[in-house]
Amino acid sequence: MRLGMFHTVGSAARPGLIVDEFVFDIRARLGRPSVTMAEILEDLPALRPAFERLSEQTPDHAIAHVSLSAPVLRPGKILALGLNYRDHALEANMALPEHQTWFAKMTTSTNGPFAAIHLPRVSAKLDFEAELAVVIGQRTRHVTREQAREVIAGYCVANDVSVRDWQLRTSQFVVGKSFDTHCPFGPWIVTADEIADPHALGIRCIVNGEMRQNSNTREMVFDIYTMIEHLSQAMTLEPGDLILTGTPSGVGALSKPPRFLTVGDVVRIEIDGVGAIENRVIAEDE
Amino acid sequence: MRLGMFHTVGSAARPGLIVDEFVFDIRARLGRPSVTMAEILEDLPALRPAFERLSEQTPDHAIAHVSLSAPVLRPGKILALGLNYRDHALEANMALPEHQTWFAKMTTSTNGPFAAIHLPRVSAKLDFEAELAVVIGQRTRHVTREQAREVIAGYCVANDVSVRDWQLRTSQFVVGKSFDTHCPFGPWIVTADEIADPHALGIRCIVNGEMRQNSNTREMVFDIYTMIEHLSQAMTLEPGDLILTGTPSGVGALSKPPRFLTVGDVVRIEIDGVGAIENRVIAEDE
Repeated sequence: MRLGMFHTVGSAARPGLIVDEFVFDIRARLGRPSVTMAEILEDLPALRPAFERLSEQTPDHAIAHVSLSAPVLRPGKILALGLNYRDHALEANMALPEHQTWFAKMTTSTNGPFAAIHLPRVSAKLDFEAELAVVIGQRTRHVTREQAREVIAGYCVANDVSVRDWQLRTSQFVVGKSFDTHCPFGPWIVTADEIADPHALGIRCIVNGEMRQNSNTREMVFDIYTMIEHLSQAMTLEPGDLILTGTPSGVGALSKPPRFLTVGDVVRIEIDGVGAIENRVIAEDE
Repeated sequence: MRLGMFHTVGSAARPGLIVDEFVFDIRARLGRPSVTMAEILEDLPALRPAFERLSEQTPDHAIAHVSLSAPVLRPGKILALGLNYRDHALEANMALPEHQTWFAKMTTSTNGPFAAIHLPRVSAKLDFEAELAVVIGQRTRHVTREQAREVIAGYCVANDVSVRDWQLRTSQFVVGKSFDTHCPFGPWIVTADEIADPHALGIRCIVNGEMRQNSNTREMVFDIYTMIEHLSQAMTLEPGDLILTGTPSGVGALSKPPRFLTVGDVVRIEIDGVGAIENRVIAEDE
């Protein structure tokens, strides 16, 4: 099952059930005019039969006639794991981490799956990071690794866009990871039941048609369930929270010589079984 | 002017105008039954005359008969500046920073000004940090230092509660700074017009009656307007966003020997002209 946020010309984004090349307007169909994606994710076990019946009916829109926004417009939190692919640790000349190194992206960085990414006024060190994103479906604290899959609503493709000079100027990454437009994700949420093993997915980043990252989520050092167990020891995870699970080798800053993104570049990220997002770089003031 | 979130027995928290020892129910008085604190902060310039008329009337509650919650229940972001007091840099044996070192607290860490702080299941290294908090009032990007004061709604007292082993286990602080209950702030927002100079305020942390931090916001390395200018170069600041401005010397981890918080401790933080918050430490499972 695929869930996304869509809008038609002149209307606000609203939740949709995506079936093949078509979209069903969830608010209209459920008669819940203000239901949010986070609420849908939390209620998903109960809503599933209704969605299955819905998908047999005549859809509301062709997907080609709508625009897709970020599938959660404002995640309550966006946490991202550093150095979590064996191949990326190798290229960075770093030992495999013993502990999970988490940083955050501010929720104002959220961006649509096909929207423009800003080259900031204040930096030219703009970089990409292809990542599998986990969307939380159930409010949880102190969940064990064994039970962690039950709190996952589904998966998205994300680009952990990074401003390298701002990220590395001090010890803390957060501001360099939180520029406006720098967390595009989507194109939809593929529900967890459709991904047999999230640790066996091809993941690629293609810039202007050139393959720059090409790996598999089996290269992760810490698996997704271990991440959720760890985070939930500290904090409550909530429906709509977004967890970015790390990036494989090939980022621009570690290319030799470094190759940063610039205006006009088109960054496409694909994950097998999840989908693809594609974002063009524009000048911030454009 | 003081604005807070209050609740009476059995009711949900709602915004209040606090005048002396009394509270006016803003939603009821304005006839806006769902207005949020962030919306009030954004509209404050327009609402001010109405609030001034209101304060002449008969109040709705005595403050002694209500409970105060965090004055913004869920800030969109909580950003905090590390090592920003000269006296704290000295005790940490660190040079004064050349650059602003920002980290984040996840918004699920938000807590009321008099609510309990959890000693986590997973750590005994619980520590306090007295901080002046800035509450953003206007949506802004690329604001200059000179104009930054115009986007500030007001000020609160905050405790940047920290789990030191989790904070320092990896290079990134965010998880150790984001345990549930670890961002108590309040007791209300004192609007910016009432603070002649936010860089000349006595700030104290008192644990079980013992003075542990005793400094003045004039010890800040980076001033508040410079902070806002810097952050807004990267990201949009929004009404209700919270900026914690650093802590002075005296934190438990740097005491000799280190002195961490434990169950039953009462942590009081006072800032001249703003107010005081007081939080008792309880076991997480209590």
